[in-house]
Amino acid sequence: MRISELSSRSGVSTASIKFYTREGLLPAGDRTGYNQTHYSAAHLDRLRLIRSLIDVGGLTVAAASKVLAAIDSPDMPMGNVLGVAHHALPQAVTPPTAESVERVEKLAAERGWRSFSRNPGIRAAAAVLDGYTAVGREDLAAVLPAYAEAAEIIARADLDAVHDAVSRAEDDRQAAAQTVVVGTVLGDQLLAGLRRVAQENEAVRRYGPPPRGE
Amino acid sequence: MRISELSSRSGVSTASIKFYTREGLLPAGDRTGYNQTHYSAAHLDRLRLIRSLIDVGGLTVAAASKVLAAIDSPDMPMGNVLGVAHHALPQAVTPPTAESVERVEKLAAERGWRSFSRNPGIRAAAAVLDGYTAVGREDLAAVLPAYAEAAEIIARADLDAVHDAVSRAEDDRQAAAQTVVVGTVLGDQLLAGLRRVAQENEAVRRYGPPPRGE
Repeated sequence: MRISELSSRSGVSTASIKFYTREGLLPAGDRTGYNQTHYSAAHLDRLRLIRSLIDVGGLTVAAASKVLAAIDSPDMPMGNVLGVAHHALPQAVTPPTAESVERVEKLAAERGWRSFSRNPGIRAAAAVLDGYTAVGREDLAAVLPAYAEAAEIIARADLDAVHDAVSRAEDDRQAAAQTVVVGTVLGDQLLAGLRRVAQENEAVRRYGPPPRGE
Repeated sequence: MRISELSSRSGVSTASIKFYTREGLLPAGDRTGYNQTHYSAAHLDRLRLIRSLIDVGGLTVAAASKVLAAIDSPDMPMGNVLGVAHHALPQAVTPPTAESVERVEKLAAERGWRSFSRNPGIRAAAAVLDGYTAVGREDLAAVLPAYAEAAEIIARADLDAVHDAVSRAEDDRQAAAQTVVVGTVLGDQLLAGLRRVAQENEAVRRYGPPPRGE
């Protein structure tokens, strides 16, 4: 298909398509003649993946570029793909304090969590604890044990999904890598959404429905 | 204190302080003389809150402005403050399909979740399901029941934290509103961080530690 059809079928402007190609996120199309380039169904799939990571997952173009490179590296061990997806988490602008990092590491140790990497999740969680302190709300850290319990339930479901994808795809390594990346990046948003619905339910359960007319 | 001291104590540049004042996020200081403005400890607290919402919570300046306005509105019922915090969730660029919205609503109904609002979490979760479909990975939606269970655990901890803050602060409505906003916005990042640590543990539990030297 031509770029105009690729644009209309993907909902991505031709300017953005050209930008993603220049930035290396999308492979170039085949030049078939003067001022004419042919794009395949694989380009359409790739564009949809790019837009899901950016629009739904909230990744920057730079972060999307890194996780796509991991999907594309046939020799990268799957554990490293998970690491790249982990690093796509937006990093706090200010590094966390040693105290908060220790507090998260202590929580992980108490739950028997084993880590063999400099897991960026520890720094992300520690930055939040620093945020609570900065606004004088250390009390909010009381949610930590419940959040850790929830994180375990989520992680089991995440790894089940990876396992199922790997079994189904047999040795389609790219499908497995995509599951890891898409599941990790979009999963944060899925969870944030469901949390808000569950919060409203919990508020209604405790305090009753809101007065009419609101 | 002068703006230079406010800047050094908060770690926020004077240009950003002036920007937040122009945008209405930070109240103006007291003019005490020609080219001299006095800032109080309340300004420092406010700046720390602004930066936590933006740097750690990942809010845009516009979204931070809205949730700060909710904290500042003494007459806004707490349920509405929760609603404003909910709407600070980054919105998907493309509206979700009716099918995905229905699927999330069905999940909520199956779990007995009651909702009296157009809860933005439903649209956020539905946009993720559309993202899975767009990249041909509908199978990833298999995580939904586990995520919903985790969301319930989190919501209970969230509402406990609000309850504790309200009890402690008695009728300090602003402290309670801050708990709702900071807990909701930063809580997403805390959970995303802990999820990554729990994922690594779950991967190690299933597949063993990574080979040495990696």
